[in-house]
Amino acid sequence: MIAEIVSVGTELLLGQVCNTNARFLAQHLAELGIDSYYQQVVGDNRGRLADALRLALARSDLVITTGGLGPTEDDLTKETVAEVLGLELVPDPATANRIRGLLCAQGSRILESAVAKQSLVPEGAEVFPNPVGTAPGLGVAAGGRVVVLLPGPPAELKAVVREHVLPWLEEMLATGGTSSALAAARARKFLCSRVVKVCGLGEPAVEEALGDLVRSVNPTVAPLVTTGETHVRVTAAAGSKEEAGRLAGEMAELVASCLEPHVFGYDDETLPSACGKLLRAAGLTLALAESVTGGLVGHLLTEVPGASDYFERGVVVYSNRSKTELCGVPDGLLRAHGAVSEPVAVAMAQGIRERSQTDLGLSLTGIAGPTGGTSTKPVGLVYVALAGPGGVRCERYVFAGGRSVVKLRAAQRALTLLWERLRLGVDTPATGVDRDGVSGGPAGAEGRHRG
Amino acid sequence: MIAEIVSVGTELLLGQVCNTNARFLAQHLAELGIDSYYQQVVGDNRGRLADALRLALARSDLVITTGGLGPTEDDLTKETVAEVLGLELVPDPATANRIRGLLCAQGSRILESAVAKQSLVPEGAEVFPNPVGTAPGLGVAAGGRVVVLLPGPPAELKAVVREHVLPWLEEMLATGGTSSALAAARARKFLCSRVVKVCGLGEPAVEEALGDLVRSVNPTVAPLVTTGETHVRVTAAAGSKEEAGRLAGEMAELVASCLEPHVFGYDDETLPSACGKLLRAAGLTLALAESVTGGLVGHLLTEVPGASDYFERGVVVYSNRSKTELCGVPDGLLRAHGAVSEPVAVAMAQGIRERSQTDLGLSLTGIAGPTGGTSTKPVGLVYVALAGPGGVRCERYVFAGGRSVVKLRAAQRALTLLWERLRLGVDTPATGVDRDGVSGGPAGAEGRHRG
Repeated sequence: MIAEIVSVGTELLLGQVCNTNARFLAQHLAELGIDSYYQQVVGDNRGRLADALRLALARSDLVITTGGLGPTEDDLTKETVAEVLGLELVPDPATANRIRGLLCAQGSRILESAVAKQSLVPEGAEVFPNPVGTAPGLGVAAGGRVVVLLPGPPAELKAVVREHVLPWLEEMLATGGTSSALAAARARKFLCSRVVKVCGLGEPAVEEALGDLVRSVNPTVAPLVTTGETHVRVTAAAGSKEEAGRLAGEMAELVASCLEPHVFGYDDETLPSACGKLLRAAGLTLALAESVTGGLVGHLLTEVPGASDYFERGVVVYSNRSKTELCGVPDGLLRAHGAVSEPVAVAMAQGIRERSQTDLGLSLTGIAGPTGGTSTKPVGLVYVALAGPGGVRCERYVFAGGRSVVKLRAAQRALTLLWERLRLGVDTPATGVDRDGVSGGPAGAEGRHRG
Repeated sequence: MIAEIVSVGTELLLGQVCNTNARFLAQHLAELGIDSYYQQVVGDNRGRLADALRLALARSDLVITTGGLGPTEDDLTKETVAEVLGLELVPDPATANRIRGLLCAQGSRILESAVAKQSLVPEGAEVFPNPVGTAPGLGVAAGGRVVVLLPGPPAELKAVVREHVLPWLEEMLATGGTSSALAAARARKFLCSRVVKVCGLGEPAVEEALGDLVRSVNPTVAPLVTTGETHVRVTAAAGSKEEAGRLAGEMAELVASCLEPHVFGYDDETLPSACGKLLRAAGLTLALAESVTGGLVGHLLTEVPGASDYFERGVVVYSNRSKTELCGVPDGLLRAHGAVSEPVAVAMAQGIRERSQTDLGLSLTGIAGPTGGTSTKPVGLVYVALAGPGGVRCERYVFAGGRSVVKLRAAQRALTLLWERLRLGVDTPATGVDRDGVSGGPAGAEGRHRG
């Protein structure tokens, strides 16, 4: 079965919103083993929408539209689909009542003309009730094709797809459904993707380590660089879900074995959740002293449920006074070396560890920019230090990019340092040489993509 | 002139990445006054890409492709465009040298076969050098049409577009260029968008306040809800850039006058930057005590350049011990009311203000979930308190959503409370009744979209 997403909305053509709906749908279609060769975007224009639908119906078995189901005159997806398929629109009283109920619960005014428009459905359509909005999703089979109409607001689309459309498609794929086009679905390919996640290793080093694996045809192996991490996506295709899963799993293991010891997790694992697992397993607690990142490291760590088990506290020491008062950084040290310096980063990490009585103290100080840089201390200069029972390690980086990017890269690097130290065991001496200066690394690695 | 974006890449069809390139290009086309009726997405398949290109060339004057310019066999956009336009590919030595120089600077190996493939260009093409990657952009005019080829990695695409393609298109539009198709460009429409940003007012209240303005045809007026904020986008079309700007500006003022006193800014203004402006203008300093948000409020405030002028420090008091040690919250208060309570939120705000010697102290405590909720203190319960010279105000919310959403909504609400207080003047008594409990608000407002 071949599917095609037709996204309807002038806001997409104007670039006012990003087409996250298409991505969400494409992901789920791939997971169901449904192929897709094309996507289209078209504005709120009846003639052009009809052309796009005819093109999609000529080359795809399942056409999924998003948007244009609202109550206003601009919203014409339902009307155009019915016209193209030669179907009448008929009132659906159950939908009308659901819309009235929703408006009432929200304390909104009920406009009967809007209710009447939104509760019209193509004859014979399957209605997918919308739990969070007024426009229901619709499923229509005609002429050997299936058309699914979905509301445009992402929260509504996701709810309707998860609650109704995915089970409906699964059922159709399993039984061959009511539409002859769906018989072809039995010949479908199942896809399974796994992601192997690596930190502390740039893309060139990852590619070097993977060698010829990146040329594998099934599963495919594709490295992707994100800020401070490299993700290797493995995608397998097979005749059954289980077989695709087995193939992808085996390749993911192979990929991971090439990248050890830098693999921090798989699939939905994040660097903060990987750190959290190691902290919890070792029964360790952590305190943070952030300057340049302004709270970002704490924010990332506390995105993980249960972070309070190991994250005791953080301080955002944005002023010199707060560095002294909250981390005990001596005033003389600040005057001698400046707030952005190795001695201050080390004193922050040690100070927050001692004052919080935690096992580990992690600190960051730097210059996020755009101003404040000098020739010896440029914008992007960041010191990251980790104090633990085995000593202190301090690293120096100069990150490229704007303020937000420098903050994010610094936070990622701090989490990488933490994860690497936890992996080795915190009692290990911090390094052969304490406070080892390391420059560049992740900053340089990120420019490298292929065109 | 009509433009059409053709995005090339199987990763888009599989939903592995979101099509941010299409959005970026669409925005810039709209700003240049170039209309767009369709967008297409197609995988790395020569036959289907050729079909998509032929369709686009049949209905659009300017076709912009993204992706498929890399060095591997999968990358076939350039080859397919040349085939469809009937052009030869010829080596471009200047591009080859630029690629070698870039690889050398990155310390990457130079593979001459890859250099040779990436430096081939269609005969007569305009080459747009890529400052951050190996694949250059290309501009080709043939058969009365213009095709622009762009590399797929977003950072490369943006750099090539900003540095080369936009000026090139501007020039073409101004002079009629070399292509007959471009003569039509003189009849183009210019668009200008302005965004009016509102906090502390839900979408229904915004719509009520705007009344019939949302039915305006030119400029259009469209409210859009984001987490804790409502943005009203005004888009005007006119025969000149200046006229579009004037129309949009006048309507934005009208919209703002309907929404006063809730308008915190326009266009790129963010709630943290709006707070920062008010803090700086009043010469006030701020300290934070975050529990539930884990550092997110500090992170958001420090995204603004120069935040150190007014943001003195923050503490992330994730444990009871840290609430007592860093904010002076009495142990008895924590035992009597629990960490998530109005008295503790108030004590945190007052404590951090006193200990930091700042003008304002802002605190948050709550239950982000997914666990830790009870029947009287459910997941999503958050107290936000602001202490200042005029007293303390504490608000209570129950936010819907997962852990990240609760954190984000709580942070937005804290910033809204701060902005509202700064707008009124911090010396004003905090409220008629101190510590006024307010429930629901933004949490409820967000479910409402139209389909």
